[in-house]
Amino acid sequence: MAEMILTKVIDGEIVRLDGRHMDELRPVTIQRKWTSNPEGSVLISCGNTRVLCTASWQVGVPRWRKGSGLGWVTAEYSMIPRATGERTERESIRGRVSGRTHEISRLIGRSLRGVIDMAALGENQIIVDCDVLQADGGTRTASITGAYVAVADAIRWAKHQHYISDDAHILLDQVSAISVGVIQNHPMLDLPYPEDSNAGTDMNVVMTGSGKFIEIQGTAEHGPFDRDELNTLLDLATKGNKELQKLQLKALAED
Amino acid sequence: MAEMILTKVIDGEIVRLDGRHMDELRPVTIQRKWTSNPEGSVLISCGNTRVLCTASWQVGVPRWRKGSGLGWVTAEYSMIPRATGERTERESIRGRVSGRTHEISRLIGRSLRGVIDMAALGENQIIVDCDVLQADGGTRTASITGAYVAVADAIRWAKHQHYISDDAHILLDQVSAISVGVIQNHPMLDLPYPEDSNAGTDMNVVMTGSGKFIEIQGTAEHGPFDRDELNTLLDLATKGNKELQKLQLKALAED
Amino acid sequence: MAEMILTKVIDGEIVRLDGRHMDELRPVTIQRKWTSNPEGSVLISCGNTRVLCTASWQVGVPRWRKGSGLGWVTAEYSMIPRATGERTERESIRGRVSGRTHEISRLIGRSLRGVIDMAALGENQIIVDCDVLQADGGTRTASITGAYVAVADAIRWAKHQHYISDDAHILLDQVSAISVGVIQNHPMLDLPYPEDSNAGTDMNVVMTGSGKFIEIQGTAEHGPFDRDELNTLLDLATKGNKELQKLQLKALAED
Amino acid sequence: MAEMILTKVIDGEIVRLDGRHMDELRPVTIQRKWTSNPEGSVLISCGNTRVLCTASWQVGVPRWRKGSGLGWVTAEYSMIPRATGERTERESIRGRVSGRTHEISRLIGRSLRGVIDMAALGENQIIVDCDVLQADGGTRTASITGAYVAVADAIRWAKHQHYISDDAHILLDQVSAISVGVIQNHPMLDLPYPEDSNAGTDMNVVMTGSGKFIEIQGTAEHGPFDRDELNTLLDLATKGNKELQKLQLKALAED
Amino acid sequence: MAEMILTKVIDGEIVRLDGRHMDELRPVTIQRKWTSNPEGSVLISCGNTRVLCTASWQVGVPRWRKGSGLGWVTAEYSMIPRATGERTERESIRGRVSGRTHEISRLIGRSLRGVIDMAALGENQIIVDCDVLQADGGTRTASITGAYVAVADAIRWAKHQHYISDDAHILLDQVSAISVGVIQNHPMLDLPYPEDSNAGTDMNVVMTGSGKFIEIQGTAEHGPFDRDELNTLLDLATKGNKELQKLQLKALAED
Amino acid sequence: MAEMILTKVIDGEIVRLDGRHMDELRPVTIQRKWTSNPEGSVLISCGNTRVLCTASWQVGVPRWRKGSGLGWVTAEYSMIPRATGERTERESIRGRVSGRTHEISRLIGRSLRGVIDMAALGENQIIVDCDVLQADGGTRTASITGAYVAVADAIRWAKHQHYISDDAHILLDQVSAISVGVIQNHPMLDLPYPEDSNAGTDMNVVMTGSGKFIEIQGTAEHGPFDRDELNTLLDLATKGNKELQKLQLKALAED
Repeated sequence: MAEMILTKVIDGEIVRLDGRHMDELRPVTIQRKWTSNPEGSVLISCGNTRVLCTASWQVGVPRWRKGSGLGWVTAEYSMIPRATGERTERESIRGRVSGRTHEISRLIGRSLRGVIDMAALGENQIIVDCDVLQADGGTRTASITGAYVAVADAIRWAKHQHYISDDAHILLDQVSAISVGVIQNHPMLDLPYPEDSNAGTDMNVVMTGSGKFIEIQGTAEHGPFDRDELNTLLDLATKGNKELQKLQLKALAED
Repeated sequence: MAEMILTKVIDGEIVRLDGRHMDELRPVTIQRKWTSNPEGSVLISCGNTRVLCTASWQVGVPRWRKGSGLGWVTAEYSMIPRATGERTERESIRGRVSGRTHEISRLIGRSLRGVIDMAALGENQIIVDCDVLQADGGTRTASITGAYVAVADAIRWAKHQHYISDDAHILLDQVSAISVGVIQNHPMLDLPYPEDSNAGTDMNVVMTGSGKFIEIQGTAEHGPFDRDELNTLLDLATKGNKELQKLQLKALAED
Repeated sequence: MAEMILTKVIDGEIVRLDGRHMDELRPVTIQRKWTSNPEGSVLISCGNTRVLCTASWQVGVPRWRKGSGLGWVTAEYSMIPRATGERTERESIRGRVSGRTHEISRLIGRSLRGVIDMAALGENQIIVDCDVLQADGGTRTASITGAYVAVADAIRWAKHQHYISDDAHILLDQVSAISVGVIQNHPMLDLPYPEDSNAGTDMNVVMTGSGKFIEIQGTAEHGPFDRDELNTLLDLATKGNKELQKLQLKALAED
Repeated sequence: MAEMILTKVIDGEIVRLDGRHMDELRPVTIQRKWTSNPEGSVLISCGNTRVLCTASWQVGVPRWRKGSGLGWVTAEYSMIPRATGERTERESIRGRVSGRTHEISRLIGRSLRGVIDMAALGENQIIVDCDVLQADGGTRTASITGAYVAVADAIRWAKHQHYISDDAHILLDQVSAISVGVIQNHPMLDLPYPEDSNAGTDMNVVMTGSGKFIEIQGTAEHGPFDRDELNTLLDLATKGNKELQKLQLKALAED
Repeated sequence: MAEMILTKVIDGEIVRLDGRHMDELRPVTIQRKWTSNPEGSVLISCGNTRVLCTASWQVGVPRWRKGSGLGWVTAEYSMIPRATGERTERESIRGRVSGRTHEISRLIGRSLRGVIDMAALGENQIIVDCDVLQADGGTRTASITGAYVAVADAIRWAKHQHYISDDAHILLDQVSAISVGVIQNHPMLDLPYPEDSNAGTDMNVVMTGSGKFIEIQGTAEHGPFDRDELNTLLDLATKGNKELQKLQLKALAED
Repeated sequence: MAEMILTKVIDGEIVRLDGRHMDELRPVTIQRKWTSNPEGSVLISCGNTRVLCTASWQVGVPRWRKGSGLGWVTAEYSMIPRATGERTERESIRGRVSGRTHEISRLIGRSLRGVIDMAALGENQIIVDCDVLQADGGTRTASITGAYVAVADAIRWAKHQHYISDDAHILLDQVSAISVGVIQNHPMLDLPYPEDSNAGTDMNVVMTGSGKFIEIQGTAEHGPFDRDELNTLLDLATKGNKELQKLQLKALAED
């Protein structure tokens, strides 16, 4: 098939199909308290990607963790059937969770645990659910970025309810995530679906507020990359994560 | 346990805890095109109950229906884990769909099929997905009411795309649904969760725009009902469905 | 396909294909103690429909009910593969229970619970199994009618074994069920398979000995019905249930 | 626990608890055409063990056998929950078939295939379903003995329907099965549950009408056996199978 | 299809395709401590069949056995996908264990339990895993023969670790197993895949060191066998098992 | 719990518990043709980690790829129950594949596809199975390194069998993988289980023979890492992969 060209020239400058610069994020909105049942409930939009991230506070931890004095944070990721362009069969109907779903759920969980002080959390559990309502690339990174805000809200709720002490310092740092990739030889930040599916290399980068890495997942099924390309991509991801973290702070500053 | 009293007196009149009269619906909003991938996408709110209803148009029908010249409409219902007050385990994780989910999915499908002319639809399929984002009673009836609008939009889309002829008369009638019940001896319309879970009798009534019944499901696990009570409940349901159908028309009249 | 005509004229009167009047039940037999292991074991035949209903008494209740002082009654419905004209695959082999099976099992359970005093039952559980050995329409209503007798026998057994006191008044009322429907514009009582599959409207009506409703499930996937038709159908169902309840009493009177 | 003594002395002779001699079968009844939907339908009782064996004739064979000109015979075994003294959970609910069920289903299938000429059967399939309605030992052997009669009836049906030629010689021989075992040092024929569960050695022996073996499954988890004991058990089984085969012939001779 | 001839004549004597005499075993090797994690770990090769048998010692028994003072031994059999000539789908991917796997796992477990004194084992459990790495017939019998050695090693380990007393006499006898069959009218010992798949009768015989039978499973789906043939096959199996038991002893004598 | 110290000082130098330098691989052996059924069969040992990697050549591709002219390579990873110190339940018994297994299988598949020219492969499929027989850290990287050799052998086989032309250039490059991590502040190469489970940061790095990256998966659930640490780890991984690739070439040079 003929390859789709994913860049165009505007005013003498090479830009992406949606008009963005190579190092530009899509518009992001973070709505807190989008539903009222969960302790944290965040609707995050990154371009057309829209994910509902809820955080459920549960007193107590799974059995294997009991008596440790430590808390636990876990995550589950899912997509509604028509989040995608073609309808995807429900995993509940198929009777099993796909490898992709497992992989993403585990990634979200590890990313959040990377900034949580489990001792400060005490024997409580936070379960994060990321349900993708509309998918246009970057659903796993939007999930992490939104989930952080939902977790922060759940912790505020728990303090307000006196489940934990007001001065418990549970969140060691912020965490956000963004995708980067090399598409038709252009390193780009924040890939929507058409770019993502044409990427030679794509990478998801999870970073803390202090600029450290919690997770780097780079894949080059369609074109191995070298050390220089890696460095360019990490620079882009660093820029993107910094911007996302400002938006997280702004959302959490509102009341 | 002490029973919760679900009525109060205001200005000498007995009203419900949320201030509604016995025969009054909760506030309803119907937002069309809430997401952009599905051919029909409706976010319906009935009080705190919020359901995303999508309609997916698919050319072709399931194997058992091929060559019949007839279309097919089916539905799947699901809840995200924190739609509810307590987190509910995902059915994909448990590896099986619950009886309740099956029962509701089948009800939604039958209700929609009751107003569809399958010959006019031709060998096309409409798959309806109702994902409950927030649950406060009446999720199955909200799903039916919202799904009707999503299906209408999917049919408009298919005509616009010339998948079917502009003058195909597929929708024979409108369809909507509402719950009614007897709570602490008061017949009431449109039950939120606290009323629903205290109902002696509760009934879901699916009606057409012409005032006929497509489905009546009355259950009295906690107090059998007689013919008079049945008639009172059906009167309430008729009133509620008429109001819902006006709101459906109003939503569909917008562009 | 040409529609099958489901009535004929005999002696100037319109009757059904099997010669019954519109308001006539099929022949019913209720055999108690059909197998000897269960505490209640009833083989019920309604025309060609044949269901083995067993009631198992278990000391103790499910975990979520422990300490409540209340009992529990639940039911499971199944069909052997060749109950039907075409062989149906076993649900154990498919690895999942169908929506239809779930729906019927839940209906049977609710119907029985509607006449049981859970406090009088105490922390004991009755599990009802309805295994359809031959299917010709009305398997769910035959299951309910037969299950009531099996449950009555299980309670007698428990009293005889001194699991509960002789004067515990557990059964608040009788319960039976029958199908009614509108077939080719004729309202009819007790539908065998050919009528059931041609019904525009069909309804299953579960009633107590005192003539109240426990469950009404009316479906009109193939032709909505109005209030008058509903009333006619309910009259038929009331007549049918009264006759079934006499047969239940007669069966229980034998010993 | 104190071992239950499974023999007693009557008139100076050692007999079994139910009064039978060591080499005596339990009373057997074979009812053909017990239900009317299947092509073969046999209710077999061996003492308190009662199994409904149906044979379903299907035109065509599984995909892996297509074009071979050969037929296929397969079997599925199941128990209703209260066939047993304690209620057994349904395999459909557990979502998986147990090893025991698999093992028995495969045994029944192999036993029947051992007397079927697959070329004479042509590309047709017979599916045998053995549903145990009451269990008191020997359910797998009763299933084989009853299934043979059901298969014979299905073949008659197929000839009558002209699915196969009247002179097709499909059944090469009769087949029946019986259990034998060493219980408290006494070799015995046809073990009911109390004997079976106390057997040191037990063996299921499937034999043809000509006295050959199709399957021998001897197990001595609780006491290895030697060649002499084996010979005694095989003599008992030969006697039992001969008697069962007479009863099969008698049942098939009726019309 | 033309039948493959499975014998040839060498020096005027009829031998098998691999040059073996009718009563000759394939070359057997038994390597103990093949991996270091399990308490017993044996790689057994019988011709091209290669099975890794591990025995895991676990303090404690399954719930249904608690408080009995008795131990438990169970086994699980599996094949890696390319143990076979054609790749076999993984049972974990299919989501269910096949009937064949269940049947063999149960056979291995029963065979081992037949030589274990459960009281001497005390409330400990030995779990045997037999993973077939290469399959060329006789995988279940090789599993039993190898598993015995692995269990013996696990018991030595438990004594050395003082989980049980040095003088506990847990193993009542040796146990080994071999296949025999009638192939093209020749009774043969130890069948590789081409012989096994052409056998009219084949039999797996599990025997103790004292020459008694623990399990006999003879199947003649393709040609019933008589008493004389049975005796010939049992003689062959006795010879084969004696030789295998010598090899077991030799392996266990090494340190 | 007290932390285990994972380094020691020998001759004034800090080394690891097994005596290795920080940048030293464990001893590696690569045995080709370890079993004879698969087209490629490699037993790879990296220290105590031992994985059997088989490559199955299949003519044809999955349905979604048919007619594309392109081949496909996929992988499945599994562990036998006692590969680990504690016995792990079989995924076939649990009825579902874990998230970890899915994640690793997908990683192996992507890594191999990264060096395969799918057009040169034509419409053929290579299925790689990696069965871990003994686990001591690094099972996924050992799987990739061994699988490359198995795939190379399968391609040789296919050329020899004339399934593809001798001059088809399918393997674009070599591929190998190794783990690196920061353990107690020391960056280390090739982590056995005790180091892996104590790593703050650990990373799996998949590289081509030309020194490019195919996959980088770095996780820092227990201590985010910065750009400098990342660079140190990538240097270690580059060194390790170069050494592994020499061993692959050496193994493939043998006949």
